[in-house]
Amino acid sequence: MNQPNNQQKPGKQSKPEQNPKAERSAISPRRSENYPEWYQQVIKGADLAEASPVRGCMVIKPWGYAIWESIQAVLDRMFKDTGHVNAYFPLLIPKSFLEKEAEHVEGFAKECAVVTHHRLEVGPDGKGLVPAGELDEPLIIRPTSETIIGASYAKWVQSYRDLPILINQWANVMRWELRTRMFLRTSEFLWQEGHTVHATAKEAMEETRKMLDVYHAFANDYMAMPVIRGEKTPGERFPGAVNTFTIEAMMQDRKALQAGTSHFLGQNFAKASGIKFLNAESKEEIAWTTSWGVSTRLIGGLIMTHSDDDGLVLPPRLASKHVVINPIFRNDDERASVMEYCDRLRRDLSDLQFGGLDFISGHGTTRLQVWLDDRDLRGGDKTWQHIKKGIPVRLEIGPRDIQNDSVFMGRRDQSPRDKKSVGRSELLATIIATLNEMQNNLHGRALEHQKANTKHVDTWADFEAFFGKARSDDKDDDDNSSMQGGFALAHWSDDPSDTAAIDAKLKPLKVTARCIPLDPDELGTGEHGKCLFTGKPSKQRVIFAKAY
Amino acid sequence: MNQPNNQQKPGKQSKPEQNPKAERSAISPRRSENYPEWYQQVIKGADLAEASPVRGCMVIKPWGYAIWESIQAVLDRMFKDTGHVNAYFPLLIPKSFLEKEAEHVEGFAKECAVVTHHRLEVGPDGKGLVPAGELDEPLIIRPTSETIIGASYAKWVQSYRDLPILINQWANVMRWELRTRMFLRTSEFLWQEGHTVHATAKEAMEETRKMLDVYHAFANDYMAMPVIRGEKTPGERFPGAVNTFTIEAMMQDRKALQAGTSHFLGQNFAKASGIKFLNAESKEEIAWTTSWGVSTRLIGGLIMTHSDDDGLVLPPRLASKHVVINPIFRNDDERASVMEYCDRLRRDLSDLQFGGLDFISGHGTTRLQVWLDDRDLRGGDKTWQHIKKGIPVRLEIGPRDIQNDSVFMGRRDQSPRDKKSVGRSELLATIIATLNEMQNNLHGRALEHQKANTKHVDTWADFEAFFGKARSDDKDDDDNSSMQGGFALAHWSDDPSDTAAIDAKLKPLKVTARCIPLDPDELGTGEHGKCLFTGKPSKQRVIFAKAY
Repeated sequence: MNQPNNQQKPGKQSKPEQNPKAERSAISPRRSENYPEWYQQVIKGADLAEASPVRGCMVIKPWGYAIWESIQAVLDRMFKDTGHVNAYFPLLIPKSFLEKEAEHVEGFAKECAVVTHHRLEVGPDGKGLVPAGELDEPLIIRPTSETIIGASYAKWVQSYRDLPILINQWANVMRWELRTRMFLRTSEFLWQEGHTVHATAKEAMEETRKMLDVYHAFANDYMAMPVIRGEKTPGERFPGAVNTFTIEAMMQDRKALQAGTSHFLGQNFAKASGIKFLNAESKEEIAWTTSWGVSTRLIGGLIMTHSDDDGLVLPPRLASKHVVINPIFRNDDERASVMEYCDRLRRDLSDLQFGGLDFISGHGTTRLQVWLDDRDLRGGDKTWQHIKKGIPVRLEIGPRDIQNDSVFMGRRDQSPRDKKSVGRSELLATIIATLNEMQNNLHGRALEHQKANTKHVDTWADFEAFFGKARSDDKDDDDNSSMQGGFALAHWSDDPSDTAAIDAKLKPLKVTARCIPLDPDELGTGEHGKCLFTGKPSKQRVIFAKAY
Repeated sequence: MNQPNNQQKPGKQSKPEQNPKAERSAISPRRSENYPEWYQQVIKGADLAEASPVRGCMVIKPWGYAIWESIQAVLDRMFKDTGHVNAYFPLLIPKSFLEKEAEHVEGFAKECAVVTHHRLEVGPDGKGLVPAGELDEPLIIRPTSETIIGASYAKWVQSYRDLPILINQWANVMRWELRTRMFLRTSEFLWQEGHTVHATAKEAMEETRKMLDVYHAFANDYMAMPVIRGEKTPGERFPGAVNTFTIEAMMQDRKALQAGTSHFLGQNFAKASGIKFLNAESKEEIAWTTSWGVSTRLIGGLIMTHSDDDGLVLPPRLASKHVVINPIFRNDDERASVMEYCDRLRRDLSDLQFGGLDFISGHGTTRLQVWLDDRDLRGGDKTWQHIKKGIPVRLEIGPRDIQNDSVFMGRRDQSPRDKKSVGRSELLATIIATLNEMQNNLHGRALEHQKANTKHVDTWADFEAFFGKARSDDKDDDDNSSMQGGFALAHWSDDPSDTAAIDAKLKPLKVTARCIPLDPDELGTGEHGKCLFTGKPSKQRVIFAKAY
C-alpha cells in the first residue's frame, strides 16, 4: 500500500523525490506530512473560511462563498431543467413534528439546537440579559426538513391531479456536532434539500435515481470530481428512508467522502405526515416521497480532490475568476502604460464566453471572469496569493511583455515555476480551449487516483493490510498518516443477523461500508462470491473505506 | 379626501361605478371593500404563500418564491456591479455579543428566538422528548447580524490597506413578532444585509447613500414601484445607527411601506466590536461602518402596488413567466394539432430575449419565459388561475385561431375581458415591446397614484382630516376602511425636546413620520416654514403617513 508520494502530485507539478530541497511549497505542511493540517492550511491560504465564535459554526468568507454560488447556479439550473421549482419552509420545527417518525427522531433529535424562549430580559441583578417568554412547545432548528415540509404537503395533496410535487429548498440547517471540520462537518451548514411526492413507488424511485444522476453529472462535469453511484447498506441509511443512494468520492488521502445523497422514503414520511390522495378511482392512497441533498460539504470535497502543496486548485467551470492579471511595473511611468495594456486585455478577455453554464438551454453562456489585480502589493506576493486561491490562469504583464505584445502565463494545473510567454492574440485565441483542457486534466488526474487506489480484496488479512492497521496510531479521527487505504471492494453478506459482527470487525479499522455500486461494471463489483466477513454467499462487492 | 374608487383601478381595467353588477372580480373582497382581507386573498389566489404551523412563520410557495428569486438575481448583480461580494456568517449569535451595543440590544433583544439546549432526550416518563444539554451561554437566532459580523471584521481589519470591506449576505433572520402579516411582517423572513467597513466617515456615508440609490433604482426600474428616498427622523432610526435612510413607497390603500433601509452606523458598532485599523501614519483609528437591507417584505410591496381586484399583477421584469399559452381544444384530433402549434409558438417565443437583466454588463440578457399550460383542466379555469397569478401576457389558441395563424391575447394590465386577436408574426414582432410598455404602464399608474395622494398640509385640522379621523373606527391595525389618507407633507421641528409631544399627537391617528425627503424638489418639501405641531421654525417638510 505504499504508493510513491508523487502519486499525490501528478504531472509536472512537483517531483519531491528527485529534488526535495529546491522546491518549497506554499502550503505547510505538505499533504504527505500531515494531510488534515494541510487541509486546514489550504483553507486558510485561500481565505475560504474561518472558525466562528459560535461553537462548531464557520464563517464562509467571500472566496469560499463564491464557490458555493457557482455550485448553486449550476445545480439550480439542473434542478429546474428536471422540472423542479424552489420554495421556502420555516427554519423552526415544533418538537412534536420531529417525534412523528420513529427512526427519524432517533437519528436527529440527539444533536439539535432547541429554542425554548422568545425574549431576552434584563436579569434579576439589573444587568445582563436572561431568556424570558418560555415557549409552550420547544422549537428545533431544522436538521433537515422532511417533517415540516411534510405538514405542508399533507395540506397541498388532495387528489392524484396534485401530484407529483417537485420542490427544492436552498437553506441553512443545523446539527449539533461534537467534532467539526470546516466545510466537511459543521454544526450549521448550507445545503439544498429536494422533497418530492409521487402517486406510485415506481415514480418515486425514478425520481430518487434521477436526482442521484444529476449529482453524478454535476460532480463529474463541473467539480471534475469522479464519484461512484451506489446504494447505502442498511446501517448507513438516512434515518427513516427505505433506500439511500449516494455518490462517493475518493479524496487525495484515499478516504471516502459522501458527496450527496438521494433517499427513497417509501411511505414512511407520508404516513407520519398524513400525505394522502384520492386516486383516479376516488380511492384514498398514501403517497410516496423522496428527498435528496448536497451541502457546503461539496466545497470540502472540491478542496481535497484537486488542491496541491501550493494550495487550492479550482476547476475552471466553478471558478468565480478564471483569469487574473498581475501588472508588473517599477515606476509611475511604467504603471500608466502597463495598466492601460492590462485593462484593454481584461476587456478583450471579458468579452469571451466560457461555458460555465453552456449546457443549459435557454440561459445563454457566462462570460470569462477576469480579475485585474491592481492592489498596491508586491507582484510576487500577489502571485502567491493567486496560486493559493487556485485561480486557473495567471497572467503577468510588464513593460517588456508589452513590447513583444505578449504575456507571461501560468496555469494552476502546472507547477508555479512552469510559466511561459504567450502572444496576446494567441492567448485570446486559445484561452477557452486551455480552460477546458484544464478542466479535463483535473478530472483525469482525480479519476486516475481513484482507480489506482481501488482494489479487490478477498481476505481479512489483505483487508487489514489495505487499511494499514500496523501504521495507524488510532489517537483520533484526525489520523495524521497521510494515506488511508483507498476503496476496498469486498464481498459482503446482507444478512441482517450478521450486521453487528461485521461492524465489530470494521470498527477498530475505522472503516465503513460506503456503498453498493449501482453499475457493477464500473469497478468490477458484479460477480457473486463469498462474504469476506462471514463466508456467506454475496451477490456483489461493496466499497469499504475510511470516510469523512 | 374621498377619491373616487376608480382611482384604484386605472385605465380600462374596470369602471365599477358605471357597471357595478356586470363585472365580477376574481378576488373577493375587492380593495374598496376590505383592503387587508383583499391582500390575503390575492396571496391565496396566486398561491404565493401560506401560514405555517410555527407561529408567525410562513411557507413561501413556489410562485411566491420565484418572485424572491427574481429580486435576488437582479439585486445580487447590482451589488456586485458596485463592488460587493457575498459571504455567510453564523445563524446563531452569543448573547454577550448582542449586549455589546446598548441601543441595539434595546431594539432587538426584546423579540428574539433563544436557543438554550443542544439536544432532545426521552423524557422522564419514558415517552416524548425534552430539551437537554443546556448551553453555558444562550444563543440568539440572528435578528440582524451587525454584532456577529462585527466580531469577524475586528479580526480581518488591521491596516487601512484592508479597507474598505464590502460584503453582503443573503440569509434568513428572525424577530419574534406579535402581529404578523404575510410577507410584510413575519417572525422569520428572508433578506439581504450588506455590512461594510470604511476608513473615513465620508466614505461610509457615500456607501450608505450609494446603496440607497441602488434600492431606489431597483424599486423603480424592476418593481415598477415608485419610492421616495429620505432620511428617518431620530425616533424611527435603526437601533444603534447615526443616520437611517429609507425608500418609502405608497401602497394602493395610501399607507406607506418602508421598502428598504441603509444605515450610516458611524463608529458605534466599530467601537462595540473593536474594529480598528492602523492608518497610513501607523496610528490606530476606529473604523466607520454601514449596513443596508431589503427583505421578502418587498414582495408584499409589489403585491400592494400593482395587484387589482382580479389578483396579482406582476411587473414583467420580475415575472418568472412572461407569457402563458392556454391551448383550447374539444377532442383528441384537435388536441394534437393545437398542441403542435402551441409548442412551436412556445419555442419561437422562448428564443426571444427579454431584458430582465439587460442593463447588467457581462451577463447577457435572459430569454422570454413561456409556460405552455397543458394541464388537464378546463380552459376557463386555467385562464382565471393565470390572471390571479399575474402572468403578464396570456395567449389562448384554438383550432380557429390556428386557421388564421393568430392567437387570442390578454394583457394583465388590462381588463380580463379586453382580449384581442393578434397575428402570430405580429405577436412575435411586438411581444417584447408590449412587455416593456406594460412595465412602464405599471410604474406610471403607481406614480400617478402616489402623486394624487400626496398633499401639503399646514394645519392640524387639515392633518386630522387628511387621515380621516372621523372615518377611522380604530378597532385595530387592520383598519378595514380602504383609504388611509396618503402622504401628508408637513413642517416639523427636529428639536428633541418636542419629540414626545409630537408623538403623543400622532399616536391616536396611527400616523408616523416616514422620512425627510432627500430631494426637496421631488415633492416640494424644501422651503422653510413653521412646525405644524409646535410652531417652531422648520427647515423642510417631512412625510407623514400611516404605515405597514
